[in-house]
Parts: sequence; structure tokens; C-alpha cells
Amino acid sequence: MFGPYLEAVRRQAPLIHNITNYVTANDCANLLLACGASPIMADDPAEVSEVQTACAGLHLNLGTLHTGTVAALLSAGCTANALGHPIVLDPVGVGISALRGTTARQLLAELHITVIRGNLSEIKVLARGSGNVHGVDADAADALTEQTLDRVIPMVKDLARRTGAVVAVSGAIDLVADGKTAYCIRNGCAMMRRVTGTGCQLSALTAAFVAASPDKPLAAAAAAVTAMGLCGQIAQSRLTPGEGNAALHSRIIDAMYNLTPRQLEEGERFETR
Amino acid sequence: MFGPYLEAVRRQAPLIHNITNYVTANDCANLLLACGASPIMADDPAEVSEVQTACAGLHLNLGTLHTGTVAALLSAGCTANALGHPIVLDPVGVGISALRGTTARQLLAELHITVIRGNLSEIKVLARGSGNVHGVDADAADALTEQTLDRVIPMVKDLARRTGAVVAVSGAIDLVADGKTAYCIRNGCAMMRRVTGTGCQLSALTAAFVAASPDKPLAAAAAAVTAMGLCGQIAQSRLTPGEGNAALHSRIIDAMYNLTPRQLEEGERFETR
Amino acid sequence: MFGPYLEAVRRQAPLIHNITNYVTANDCANLLLACGASPIMADDPAEVSEVQTACAGLHLNLGTLHTGTVAALLSAGCTANALGHPIVLDPVGVGISALRGTTARQLLAELHITVIRGNLSEIKVLARGSGNVHGVDADAADALTEQTLDRVIPMVKDLARRTGAVVAVSGAIDLVADGKTAYCIRNGCAMMRRVTGTGCQLSALTAAFVAASPDKPLAAAAAAVTAMGLCGQIAQSRLTPGEGNAALHSRIIDAMYNLTPRQLEEGERFETR
Repeated sequence: MFGPYLEAVRRQAPLIHNITNYVTANDCANLLLACGASPIMADDPAEVSEVQTACAGLHLNLGTLHTGTVAALLSAGCTANALGHPIVLDPVGVGISALRGTTARQLLAELHITVIRGNLSEIKVLARGSGNVHGVDADAADALTEQTLDRVIPMVKDLARRTGAVVAVSGAIDLVADGKTAYCIRNGCAMMRRVTGTGCQLSALTAAFVAASPDKPLAAAAAAVTAMGLCGQIAQSRLTPGEGNAALHSRIIDAMYNLTPRQLEEGERFETR
Repeated sequence: MFGPYLEAVRRQAPLIHNITNYVTANDCANLLLACGASPIMADDPAEVSEVQTACAGLHLNLGTLHTGTVAALLSAGCTANALGHPIVLDPVGVGISALRGTTARQLLAELHITVIRGNLSEIKVLARGSGNVHGVDADAADALTEQTLDRVIPMVKDLARRTGAVVAVSGAIDLVADGKTAYCIRNGCAMMRRVTGTGCQLSALTAAFVAASPDKPLAAAAAAVTAMGLCGQIAQSRLTPGEGNAALHSRIIDAMYNLTPRQLEEGERFETR
Repeated sequence: MFGPYLEAVRRQAPLIHNITNYVTANDCANLLLACGASPIMADDPAEVSEVQTACAGLHLNLGTLHTGTVAALLSAGCTANALGHPIVLDPVGVGISALRGTTARQLLAELHITVIRGNLSEIKVLARGSGNVHGVDADAADALTEQTLDRVIPMVKDLARRTGAVVAVSGAIDLVADGKTAYCIRNGCAMMRRVTGTGCQLSALTAAFVAASPDKPLAAAAAAVTAMGLCGQIAQSRLTPGEGNAALHSRIIDAMYNLTPRQLEEGERFETR
């Protein structure tokens, strides 16, 4: 089902503007290039509106957030909204500080966000105003598994309804939902959590997929999540003895570079609820 | 012909000061170490003049430009000029915003730049005041190929003449010219465009090559461009099935680490016009 | 001897807050994940105290130091001190500018630093107020070898005594000392110097080891230094022809990912003086 969404990215090569952290910016850029899109990183309030005008989508990421960057997030976001470009918001570590919490709420209040993508701890903070936080990772109490799925889906659909955004939650099972439909995606591998920035990369990828299929943000976001998970599986299957998270890191990007629409369709594992 | 320029870098191990973007700074540092030079990144206006004093060359790069960094670019540049250290300017994405355009023009007006290195879209913006821009990549209309070479060379030589800088243009064919002579270099491979930061890395490398051979900036810059292209070819030839742009990324640096002056001379493909 | 210190990291998975440079932040994060810890990077003065509260240790690194970040270093450090969290200070390139020198001295005066980790040039600047500096690398005159060891140990112990910190010096031989005891560690390989950020990564790793064994900072820091050196050796032994510093870069992280307490104990090479 998701093959055409990857094809659309390859055909359109959307230019994606990332206002993101310095920890994983290189990985986001290389993953965007791997999937067939183009990246640009620019975060000075003086230029982000112009930069966004030249782009097809926007990825806003709160990792290593600076006070001075909030104006850039808003400026680029307003331009994206005015031009109808999709925005993906990644509220990295949103529960860990007032700066991140306030900024995330302000972005949700002032902008129309197309997709919110985070782990369950981050999504709970946005949905309920509070949650367990373990740095930038999901707290152990917030594992998204078969056991917790039934309780999580209504919360996620409710957040989607209230914000008008598609909500994508990463975990052992990935969940991508709007107010009505939830995709439960069973691709990915646990070892991806040991590579920094797989979440940020997925947010950048989601921006590319949604930019290339702007009329279908739910399915496009689900396709991006599935593609990333499948690339994690492919990468893990190619590890040799003695290799670890650095090898996985490179191989995920390589898997995306080589991923075909057909391979994506054969590997996708999901159901809707 | 270019072997001695690599030898000079290996022998002198020049310390290169980079004021550059956070997306590819790690790659610039590792490529400088690979070629035998040493990197330092420092961009606070309070320290860049002192830092440059301790260095042998300067790489100014406009990717992820911040308004507050412009003073650092100028301060480090003035010190480099006063001490006779070469400066390489990489006008990343210069057509995309007024901030980048204004800054590039100010640097060219107030500093003596030794080498300007960019893609054809960026060089056109500097040469003509306008150009097609596709983010940080060359626009499709600005491919540097056999067909466009004859038209591009005079423009590049003219820019070199007006600025007093060597101008290095990256594309399917690379062009390195001063006001009189243009090296047309046929090393490199198309897949390098799918690795973020190969341009930034080349700018850093060029600073190392010119710093080690300060009396011959044209040939040294051409040697750096040739070495980078050859490393791209070597890296690509070593890819195995299933590998992609992340593997190429590492292998380019590894190829530079192992590149010998003799290998460079055997692999160099260029003519002058 | 050092196996239990690695075990403690794996068992506790300490969350380490890094205020560090943008050149090697990705590597620090992946190395922390490889050893079993978790990373978070946050450097805005508005949030670092809250972030540190949620963490178990703090890594302060002066690479790419910004004037505006000094307040964040102090704020996070005060919180760490108040909560009894260990702080590792990496005075990257401290001799190269007044900004770095003044900041390092201020941090040592206002905070209780648990471990100072740097190369011999950097440590000399802190110990004597001056030293030879070659960018962010140790000056050739500051090699830490069998010949210089006897002269260096008293200086390092004296700095430890005056600051109350464990002092870890990286070189051909690594030295980790408090006021009384010095571990002379003979793991590691020369090629690690050709990978940017191995020092920064070691500082982050040291923060994780000390955070997991807070009552034994000397032995925990020595264990981290030994583990990093051993991973360098393992990584180098796995290089194949044509590979270079980029491959070493990945393989060091992979070696840490796979390092067992038993392997550490079998590979450790040190004596105390």
C-alpha cells in the first residue's frame, strides 16, 4: 500500500527545510538525500521565512532548543502555513523543561501543524499536559506495546482531533493516527533506540513524505514511519559480528537509499484500528 | 602534477580554522584529519581572531548562517588577511536569502578572499547578482557539463578577475580558475551529490591545500578539487551491494586518509583552458 | 579490575547531560548509547538547570564555546553540585583564546568539578597558567610518553590536589590521578588522534562511568579511559585494507557497544604510581 508514497518522494524530490538540533542534523540531511528528497538547514529568524518560501515542507524539532530560535520556528511556520506547506513538529524532550513545553504549546496554538511525531512520553505531555520523561527517550512506563495499545489509541486520536494534526507515536509498535483512524505499524527493531537521532530522522522523512503527498497526510506519515522501521530491520539484518549502533546508524541510511517501492510494500506490517 | 600539493599538506599539517555550519562540521574535521591537516572550529566573535592567529588558513562557510556570526566571519577574515593566511569562502545557498547574499557580498568587499568555492548556482549569484537556487544544491538549470562549459568559463574567469580570488565551481565537471587559466577537472562521481557536506568538506580541504602551498593558490585549489573527486571515485568503486550514501560518506574520508601523492597523479583527469 | 565499573553503567543507564560543541555532539551521543548510558544535549541557560535535575551527570565541554553559553555551563554546574551529580570538564583548546581560558578558570573557581579531562597541552594551561597549544590537539612538545611521565605525574597530582578533581590526561600513555594516586594506562592507539572527537567522547563516557559509581571517581574515570583506549585498539584491529579514520570512528563506537566487563578486564593495561 505504501509504495506510491515513496515513489512520490523520489519523483518530486521535495526540498525540506529543517530547523533542528545540532546533534543529528547531519543524519537528517543524509536520510533526506537517501530517500530522494533534498535538505536545507536554516534557523536564523532573519532568513527562515525566505528559506521556507523556496521549500516544499518544514521540519520543526525542539532538540537543543535555543530561546532565540523560537522566533524562527514561528516565522518559518507562519510562512509554511500561508503557502500550504506541511509542517512536522518533533517535540524532543518536551517534558524536560518549561522552555520546551511552552514552545511546543505556542507552536500548536499559533500554527497549523500537519504531523506531530514523538515518543509516547512526549505525546503524553502534549495530550495531558504532563507525563513521565527520561531525557529525550520514552520513559520505561511509556512503552507502546500490545498491552498498552488499546489505552493509547483513544488518547492519540483525541490529541489528533484537538490539534487537527496527524499524530505519529514511535515505540515497539508505532502508531499513526488522525481523529478517526489509527495505523498500528509493526516494523522497526528495538536496536534503533540505541542510535541517536532515529526519531529526528523519522521526523525529517515524514516531512518529505507528506510534502510529496500533501492531500494524504495520514497515509503519507504512516508510509514514512513504515519505511523507517523497515530500513531499521534491513540494517539490523545486515550487521556482522562485532558491529553495533554505529554500523546500524549508517546502514539505516543505506537501506533508505536502496529501498524500492516494491520492497516497502512487501515489508510493510500494519493494521488500522 | 598534483602530487606535491598533497605532499605539502602531509608535511606541514596546517591547522585550519573553520567557521562553518553545524550540519557538516564533523565531516569537515574528519576530512581535514584524513588529508593530514588539523581542524579547529570556533565561531564566537570574542575568540576567532585569536584562534586564527594560531592557524595557517581559514574556511568561511555560510551554511546555517547566524546573524551573530557575521562579526566572527569578518574578524577572523581580517586577521587572516593581516597575517597572509589564505581564506576559502563557501557561499552555501547564497541565493536563498538576503542574509546570505548580503553577508557574501560584505565578505567579498571587506576581505581578500583567496578561493571562492561553490556550485554553479551559487557562483552565478555572486557573478551576476542573481541565479537559480534549489536550496543548497545547484539548480538543474545550472548543471556544469560539456555543453555548458564554454559559456561558464568566461563568467568564472571574470568573477575571478573582479574579486582577485581563485573560483572553484563544483559540478559534473569541476572548474577551477583565476582570471587567466581554467582547470576543467573530470574526477568525481554523481553519487557524491547524495552525501550531505561533500561541498563543505571540499572547501575545508581547499583551505588546507592552499595553506600548505600559499604561493600557488590556483594549482593548490585545483589539486584539492581533484583529490576530493578522486576520493569520491575510489569510494564509489568500493561500495558493495546494499550500500548507499552513508557508506559513500565514510569511504570518501577513508580514501583521503589513504590517498598517496602517486595515486593522485595517476588518477587526476583535467585539462586547462 | 575495571569490569564492575562498566557493569554499573549498563545496569543504571545514567542519563548524561552534555553541554558540548556541535562538531562531535553526535559522536558523544552515540558513544553514550553504546556504553549503556543515555545522552541529552541542552545548552540554553533557560533550561539547563531543569535538564540537569533530571540527569545523573554533567559533561561540560569548551569546544566551539559561545559567550552566551557560559551562563549555561555555570547554571547546570551549580545544579549538579547542589544535587551531588558528578561533573566532567573538558577544556578543549583552553590555551587558544582568552574566552576559553577565562571560562575554564571561572568554572574551576565556582564549581566543584569531579573530573578534568584533556590533553597534556590543555592540562598544562590549567596547571601552570600557560602552555603550548596546537589548536585542539596536544602540542608536539607535550607528548605524554615514558620519557615525560615522571615529570608529568607530580604536576597532574598537584592540579588534582588544588582543584579537588580527578585529572585525566590523554596521550600515548593516559594518566588518571587524584592528589595521591596516578593510573598510568597503556591502552589506546595512535590512530585515534586522527578521528575528531575521541577526546570529547571520552569526556562524555567518563561522565557516565563516574555517574554510575559516584563514590569512586578516580577508579571510575580510569575505567572509562581504559575502556575507550581498548575500544580504539579493537577498532583498529578490525580495519581492513583501504579503510581509514572514518571506519575507525564507527568501529570505536561499535566496539563500545559490544564491550563486555570481562573483555575490559582482560584488555586493561595499567599500573599505579
